[in-house]
Amino acid sequence: MRRVLLAALCGLFVCSAAFSDSGMWTFQEFPHALLKRTHGTDVSDAWLERVRTATIRLSNCTASFVSPDGLILTNHHCAEACLDEHSSQDKNLLAVGFLARTREQELKCGTQIADVLMETENITTKVAAATHGLDAKAANDKRKATMTQLEAACEQDSKEAKGGPYKCETVDMYQGGQYWLYKYHRYSDVRLVFAPERDIAAFGGDPDNFQYPRWCLDMSVLRAYGPDGKPAATPNFLSIRPEGPNAGELVFVSGHPGNTSRLLTVAQLEYLRNVTLPRWLLRNSELRGRLIEYGKSGPEARRIVEDPLNGLENAIKVRRKQLDALLDERLMQNKRQEEAALRAKVAADPQLSKQIGDPWAQSAKAQTRAAELYLPYVFIEQGAGLGGGPLSRLFGYARTLVRAAAERPKVNTERLREYSDAALPRVAQRLEAPVPVYPALEKLNLSFGLERMREWLGPDAPIVRQLLSKDSPDTLAAKLVDGTQLADPQVRKRLYEGGAAAVDASTDPMIVFARSVDAEARAVRKTFEDEVEAPEDAAAERIAQARFKIYGTSAPPDANFTLRLNFGVVEGWKENGRQVEPFTQLSRLFERATGEEPFKVPDSWLAAKGTLNPQTRFDLTTNNDIVGGNSGSPLIDANGKIVGLMFDGNIHSISGDYWFDEALNRAVAVDPQIIFEGLHKVYKADELLAELRAK
Amino acid sequence: MRRVLLAALCGLFVCSAAFSDSGMWTFQEFPHALLKRTHGTDVSDAWLERVRTATIRLSNCTASFVSPDGLILTNHHCAEACLDEHSSQDKNLLAVGFLARTREQELKCGTQIADVLMETENITTKVAAATHGLDAKAANDKRKATMTQLEAACEQDSKEAKGGPYKCETVDMYQGGQYWLYKYHRYSDVRLVFAPERDIAAFGGDPDNFQYPRWCLDMSVLRAYGPDGKPAATPNFLSIRPEGPNAGELVFVSGHPGNTSRLLTVAQLEYLRNVTLPRWLLRNSELRGRLIEYGKSGPEARRIVEDPLNGLENAIKVRRKQLDALLDERLMQNKRQEEAALRAKVAADPQLSKQIGDPWAQSAKAQTRAAELYLPYVFIEQGAGLGGGPLSRLFGYARTLVRAAAERPKVNTERLREYSDAALPRVAQRLEAPVPVYPALEKLNLSFGLERMREWLGPDAPIVRQLLSKDSPDTLAAKLVDGTQLADPQVRKRLYEGGAAAVDASTDPMIVFARSVDAEARAVRKTFEDEVEAPEDAAAERIAQARFKIYGTSAPPDANFTLRLNFGVVEGWKENGRQVEPFTQLSRLFERATGEEPFKVPDSWLAAKGTLNPQTRFDLTTNNDIVGGNSGSPLIDANGKIVGLMFDGNIHSISGDYWFDEALNRAVAVDPQIIFEGLHKVYKADELLAELRAK
Repeated sequence: MRRVLLAALCGLFVCSAAFSDSGMWTFQEFPHALLKRTHGTDVSDAWLERVRTATIRLSNCTASFVSPDGLILTNHHCAEACLDEHSSQDKNLLAVGFLARTREQELKCGTQIADVLMETENITTKVAAATHGLDAKAANDKRKATMTQLEAACEQDSKEAKGGPYKCETVDMYQGGQYWLYKYHRYSDVRLVFAPERDIAAFGGDPDNFQYPRWCLDMSVLRAYGPDGKPAATPNFLSIRPEGPNAGELVFVSGHPGNTSRLLTVAQLEYLRNVTLPRWLLRNSELRGRLIEYGKSGPEARRIVEDPLNGLENAIKVRRKQLDALLDERLMQNKRQEEAALRAKVAADPQLSKQIGDPWAQSAKAQTRAAELYLPYVFIEQGAGLGGGPLSRLFGYARTLVRAAAERPKVNTERLREYSDAALPRVAQRLEAPVPVYPALEKLNLSFGLERMREWLGPDAPIVRQLLSKDSPDTLAAKLVDGTQLADPQVRKRLYEGGAAAVDASTDPMIVFARSVDAEARAVRKTFEDEVEAPEDAAAERIAQARFKIYGTSAPPDANFTLRLNFGVVEGWKENGRQVEPFTQLSRLFERATGEEPFKVPDSWLAAKGTLNPQTRFDLTTNNDIVGGNSGSPLIDANGKIVGLMFDGNIHSISGDYWFDEALNRAVAVDPQIIFEGLHKVYKADELLAELRAK
Repeated sequence: MRRVLLAALCGLFVCSAAFSDSGMWTFQEFPHALLKRTHGTDVSDAWLERVRTATIRLSNCTASFVSPDGLILTNHHCAEACLDEHSSQDKNLLAVGFLARTREQELKCGTQIADVLMETENITTKVAAATHGLDAKAANDKRKATMTQLEAACEQDSKEAKGGPYKCETVDMYQGGQYWLYKYHRYSDVRLVFAPERDIAAFGGDPDNFQYPRWCLDMSVLRAYGPDGKPAATPNFLSIRPEGPNAGELVFVSGHPGNTSRLLTVAQLEYLRNVTLPRWLLRNSELRGRLIEYGKSGPEARRIVEDPLNGLENAIKVRRKQLDALLDERLMQNKRQEEAALRAKVAADPQLSKQIGDPWAQSAKAQTRAAELYLPYVFIEQGAGLGGGPLSRLFGYARTLVRAAAERPKVNTERLREYSDAALPRVAQRLEAPVPVYPALEKLNLSFGLERMREWLGPDAPIVRQLLSKDSPDTLAAKLVDGTQLADPQVRKRLYEGGAAAVDASTDPMIVFARSVDAEARAVRKTFEDEVEAPEDAAAERIAQARFKIYGTSAPPDANFTLRLNFGVVEGWKENGRQVEPFTQLSRLFERATGEEPFKVPDSWLAAKGTLNPQTRFDLTTNNDIVGGNSGSPLIDANGKIVGLMFDGNIHSISGDYWFDEALNRAVAVDPQIIFEGLHKVYKADELLAELRAK
């Protein structure tokens, strides 16, 4: 499972699983009483503090410190981009793996970060005061400015604080029900220490993704470095229990679930089902086909396509099952009943009814408008028609440079939020990182985007006529990609540092292209913010208030890539009457192998086979409630030891976006037994093992 | 628009637009009174007879006789496969077009046929007598055997009949409400006379498909030949009115609409929306991406991919809009109300209620079972996972040979219906036609099918393990395609004629492959027939009886690729408050051209530009009710002259599968003005023009 953030589906939605004992709890509101009641035990404040400060938010995943010298354990798929960065035609680290036997051999990951949550602060009243009495549109603008201002003040204040300076981020909990400042210690220098071969990390590949039983060593090891270039001191690390957990044992997952949408309004669910998901799937299934076919054109093509294709195939599988979940009449019926029950309770309380009005109608109206704006918003502002997206880098660089040049001269609070002072260091890091750019992939993606924009917006849409009145998608893509200098990090750095003067003067064709579509893109965005986001947020805030009033805050807020802790037990499940056992063993890996990818066991494992204990536990399942973003999360026992490394869920876990099905939803982890067996006997990684075993 | 038959969605569904004045009427029940009431005129029996015998059913489209010597007018896209058959790396007829200046130069289309409907016979009581008293499953089997037997008897009887021998086909009208025998005169020798360049035939390509205004010369000319190798004598041809129709003029479309589903049960619509359409679209969008990317690998790849890609892109656009229609709450609400109204009327009639029971519940139960069986049915029996489908030929040949060998020794009525005596000549024609087989395309398609079957059925499904336990999809596809001899029509002919002995003894790897999956495929099919088709048909038959009782037979049956006639007028429509005019003119074609495909005007037209009248009408719209299968249909005036050549609908026409929207649904035709202007000045096709102008 590639549990990266599902950003395209986030943002607008409501929160809080009001009826579930399960859930993704914040550390500040961890339900000690519930844990005691259901499992007869509790965790101490010291336990919580240690787990919190040992848990890391990567840019795309979760991870944890596993040695006092900044050693980080996460998934292989979380480090895939870093492996790709350091690969070339002659050296494919995804295929052959990597092991640094000394610290000097560790490889810097150009765009990775490691954030540790240090403090949180409730700023709900500050935000409410700022937006008081404003209409939805004005409140939306003012809220953003206020968040920018509070982040800036927080970062300024924390410069002298103990543990500072912090990266400060405002967080919307309970969809406008609460606002918080989350304060992180950020490591901007993260290096690669170890990764096994892709064929064992992702044994079974896309066919086995979200399936179980599994045999994946989906692990990698990184290390955080300080600004002084030395390994970070991380005394609060978690050590690993080499024998792994027992069946039925109480276990915790600490991590950053990216997004859940468990209490969307019915109108919002229908929008996802009718508009967002089918269109996203259609577009990206075609892109998948293009990438696969391109990858067959030669070994180098195959190499450069691998990382983006893995991400895409994971996202397709997730959204496909999300769509299935929303097409399941049982789910929709349940959601309709929940909504009707809440509305009935509101209607029965005249004061509350008067206070919140009918936010459901407002939400439904916003969805109608969202459906109208969806295509231009996705193709032009989100850049799907312009070569934007995770596949492609050049248009993203160009847009960032064009927008940063326009935004940075403005007052901090008046900028687009992604160019606020608090956000700029990360903007610069991404722009200046020496990551590879593959012209063939860029052209494929850009041509594809232009062609589909023409199909979906129609050949006579003004932006389509503007861009394609003389060129075909292929010829325009070739001109832009062949002509641009933006693949060179030095060129990007110069343009970024040169600001508006440099960018405005640039004749780089990709910059010219990004400039030429920017006014329309900004206009689409503003319309979307005013006519969808603003009324949606206003409605969601009032629905949250109704929930607070009626159900209280005893349920956790929806996931939003902030730190959460949840508990469960190691167990399998029953599938069509058949019991699925929670543990797999190494022996079955060799039986399942076909010799052909993605069911091919690497030579290193075949060579070591005779020395390996066939009974070694490999992967395991638990009933913890996790979703995308939890990849790389430590599975922790009641003593605070790591007993697993989360990397996937079973197929039923995908509908966890909308509801948690206790009977079927299972999380999947790598068992420590195979980690130690593999490091010891296959990789002979003695230095790494010694560091992992240090107490 | 590529209005080929949408076979995958046909088959099981209910009939008759009970509430609409519009409709696709059979010739035997043409509503003279309605025509008189709404348009103040009528057509004579002689008019109907002439139009019927001048209208042709091609294997994939409609066409009409336009000279007494068997000359046929149809769409370019209906002849695309024939153009492809006669193309090679050095000579691409799709690109450069074709004109036979003498009859000797005309090119035989290997798999094309031309059927003319000569007689129809109502056999409802015969079928009812055969199935009387049987349960749903037994009735389903018996009905098929009876249909096979009636077809065989009909063909036997017609050998001595005037105009015979006929091809006889049983037809289910009103979904079990009526059964008919349709008796055709079949021409099995159809040749290509003329086709313009693809760049003018399909100007605007996929982006403009289903759009309007349009500038497509989507025409081709074929000729029917008799068994004596001479041009067919077709005195009942229709002549063309060169100046085309007037705005507002009454016009008729005679043709073979492939499939409508206007009175499905709500459960059936939900099955389409939730199961069939999303999965089909996902799978085929990826295939589209693979084909496009493959086509970019070189000019020959581009050529061989063009025909299948055109068909696929058309089908994707159709299904995408069908899914949109079904996700439109207004449509579903309307369907729910219609169903509730019918059920209420049934409930209010105790006798009827007792007679038909609750077929809606039976239908819903069949849908649930269909959803469970969908994946194995599509991948194994329909062959989507085995290299079946329109893209690929080799697996299709192998399965046909394997099944024909097993079926032909059986008694006629006990065979799979597609191997009945009546069906075998067409089986042989397809097997023996010297059509090109492209190994690269075959491998692409087969590998794709295997890979998706593994994804959707799961790596542990028995058939997946059987096929892919040692090979990857790519290596298995390469072994089969490189190893088989079935690309050679002589090899296929020998195996077909050698029967079971030859096929059973064959070690051709594609034959071995088809044999190895046949038992499982047949088992899936039988389960589907018994547990979905049989109860579905039983339910549909009783719903049809209820409709007959309550609403009578004043509405036409749903489309099923049998001959229909409908009427309308030449008119545009209003789109977002803006009037779309019904006619386009030639001048705008040149303004719209970009010089890049698919918006490139061919050199022949650019060279002739100065001689062409810029006011020449190009395409036109009418409010006739047509769907896929009507491609190539003649648009006919009240005097029986051709005034247009149907080739597409506007984007709103796609929801015509489920309802006819009078305000928005428009059919699109080529205007005779551009046909004559182009033949005369661009192609200088004097011989063809002379034949078209003969009275």
